[in-house]
Amino acid sequence: MKRDLDRLMAERNIDALVVEGPDGLGSANPDFNYFVNGAALTGTVIKKRGEPAMLLHSPWEQLQAETTGLVLIPTSRWSLRDILNEIPDRFQAYVELRRRIFTDLDIGGRVGIYGTVRAGEHFALLTGLAQKLTGLEIVAEFEKDIISEARLTKEPEEVEIMRRVGRKTCAVVQAVVDFIRTGHADGDTLVDASGAAIAIGHVKELIRRELAAQGLEAPQGTIFAQGRDAGLPHATGDEAAPLILGQAIVFDIFPRELGGGYFHDMTRTFAIGYAPPQLQKIYDDVRGAFEHVVAELESGAPTKAYQDMTCKFFEARGHETIGSKYPIEEGYIHSLGHGIGLEIHEDFGFPSLQDRGELLRPGAVFTIEPGLYYPNKGIGVRIEDTYYCTPDGSFESLTPFPKDLVIPLKS
Amino acid sequence: MKRDLDRLMAERNIDALVVEGPDGLGSANPDFNYFVNGAALTGTVIKKRGEPAMLLHSPWEQLQAETTGLVLIPTSRWSLRDILNEIPDRFQAYVELRRRIFTDLDIGGRVGIYGTVRAGEHFALLTGLAQKLTGLEIVAEFEKDIISEARLTKEPEEVEIMRRVGRKTCAVVQAVVDFIRTGHADGDTLVDASGAAIAIGHVKELIRRELAAQGLEAPQGTIFAQGRDAGLPHATGDEAAPLILGQAIVFDIFPRELGGGYFHDMTRTFAIGYAPPQLQKIYDDVRGAFEHVVAELESGAPTKAYQDMTCKFFEARGHETIGSKYPIEEGYIHSLGHGIGLEIHEDFGFPSLQDRGELLRPGAVFTIEPGLYYPNKGIGVRIEDTYYCTPDGSFESLTPFPKDLVIPLKS
Repeated sequence: MKRDLDRLMAERNIDALVVEGPDGLGSANPDFNYFVNGAALTGTVIKKRGEPAMLLHSPWEQLQAETTGLVLIPTSRWSLRDILNEIPDRFQAYVELRRRIFTDLDIGGRVGIYGTVRAGEHFALLTGLAQKLTGLEIVAEFEKDIISEARLTKEPEEVEIMRRVGRKTCAVVQAVVDFIRTGHADGDTLVDASGAAIAIGHVKELIRRELAAQGLEAPQGTIFAQGRDAGLPHATGDEAAPLILGQAIVFDIFPRELGGGYFHDMTRTFAIGYAPPQLQKIYDDVRGAFEHVVAELESGAPTKAYQDMTCKFFEARGHETIGSKYPIEEGYIHSLGHGIGLEIHEDFGFPSLQDRGELLRPGAVFTIEPGLYYPNKGIGVRIEDTYYCTPDGSFESLTPFPKDLVIPLKS
Repeated sequence: MKRDLDRLMAERNIDALVVEGPDGLGSANPDFNYFVNGAALTGTVIKKRGEPAMLLHSPWEQLQAETTGLVLIPTSRWSLRDILNEIPDRFQAYVELRRRIFTDLDIGGRVGIYGTVRAGEHFALLTGLAQKLTGLEIVAEFEKDIISEARLTKEPEEVEIMRRVGRKTCAVVQAVVDFIRTGHADGDTLVDASGAAIAIGHVKELIRRELAAQGLEAPQGTIFAQGRDAGLPHATGDEAAPLILGQAIVFDIFPRELGGGYFHDMTRTFAIGYAPPQLQKIYDDVRGAFEHVVAELESGAPTKAYQDMTCKFFEARGHETIGSKYPIEEGYIHSLGHGIGLEIHEDFGFPSLQDRGELLRPGAVFTIEPGLYYPNKGIGVRIEDTYYCTPDGSFESLTPFPKDLVIPLKS
């Protein structure tokens, strides 16, 4: 939570946080959005230890800046034109601009750098600045940096937003189920009233429309993958392919509210009309694993226990798992879930490779998503809900949607 | 254009380009999208001078990787699990993984870094790698880097896509005009058939729906700003405010096709029902400037000439401009336009502060957007089309939409 920032800065001996909010990257800047609440503006957030965060912003963006509640500092305090008159080399001029800002605002000591940036430009600027400003030490945290760490535990107000995004996402999934149920079987092909095949592309189009109607966006796409594609965890689905009865369809949808908001992540696996026994068995194993894990969730427990539990559950039912084989391409091949919030994957998870000692903590929001993949059998199954560990240590699904495999067609 | 990359690498003595395509940033990575054509995948693009570009990708993303036409290298060639067993410190393990990749692929010498990254993580990784890998020199280009430079001139196939995005964007603007024309005047307030005021929020909702229907997204929002807000170039519009007849409305829309595609950028200024004389005069000046500049466009000419021409045009009509006053908050306060493509603002423009010696070159795609801002009079006007400098040196507007100020209401 934001109130953890000062404690984390003290623990890591960081004097100031500098969060870049560059132009042109839209809302793909979760650290910056965390401070400005998704306001549409550029600028830089600077927070000194023990002091409220400041927003350096363009005077053109005064209105948006006022919505953030941050301490506002218009960048017109410094004249880039004057600096360019003195120092015609643009790189040196931008370093000098940054040096003046840091000096005037008394930013120095150990300074952590955050936000989403252009690789070369940022590397050049920071390296140049560190050479020019004595007393400045750039601290580049590799993982579990201060802001990521603060973001991992959510305030009740953040969870209220995430509940809303969950409900909206479920409404989109329901619209897709309703649409599929308007179809009829022609042999094993799903067709519309005119007898034309319904393709994955039609479903994707519906998903885009329904997302927009809910005020959601899916900046990283949506997975609607059938048959062999369902067996490849990241295949997004072949738009030209018609929907086929009795095939596994993995529908994984991970949208957020427009303008850099919070994500939801859910997956359902469907079979239209009927499920062949082999698919039904694999589905039952995945659903069994899901329910087994969820029943055992306990505040304070290590996440590794749940990854191990899932592997054990699947191995007892004859599936290979990443717990005992690596690399692995069939069976249970990934981790059980991940943190979620302003990013779809936050810096928290259930370890499939290396235990990082993570615990389920009150305030955590994360996915539970066991799956089994057999691309050569044309089968993949995954079931995923987003969960919240409440302040009192209980667990709440933010994904109120049933888990039925078969979508029955009207006869 | 992509075929310029090897020449630019030779001119700048760069041995390899490394383009990061990190997880979780969606499509906000124009350099990476340039190589993978917006395919939904993570990974890293590496291009050695004189050789085709390689894509290091997850085996999970084989299908998407195949669509790129790049040389494919699955990251399963290197085992992070093995490295973590040897080197439990995660930062050192990731540096070692990167060291092995660079060594195995023979990447060394002067290596340029590109793409959109997390500031701290990337800075740490690259600094660590440079310490460990002798013979590696990280080259961080500050502006006009090799990839930005190649991207500035578009291939005919890229322009064909940009024409399509232009037509789709115009269709969204037309839908908004048609919607406004369904309203009626109640005094100076625009109301619907039931007599309820039509608010900017209703228009914004329509814009979102129409964008989705066209397969477009607006990751940086849309400006629909009325009255005083129209006088602030980046104010996005107050959703609660009702539409008022006779007020300046700046409608600036800059969407792209879904999934990291090409942007379009256009602005129209509207007045519903009628335009008061003060607004009409300012509008005529902006439209006059627009047409004056466009008539003078010439392949090979310096962009500075057009910025100067615009300032002169406005000053002759009694407006203050950034050409003779800085900082400036009223009048003509910004530059005439900017390059556009996979980013809304590309590294090319008409200089308002410092001339960078840029020329209008065949293949360039850029905006022309003069404007006048008088927030204290409740007036702002901007007119913007996207232009293309063709291979034969002529200029084509990619924005086929009329430039009428007044949206007449049905009586």
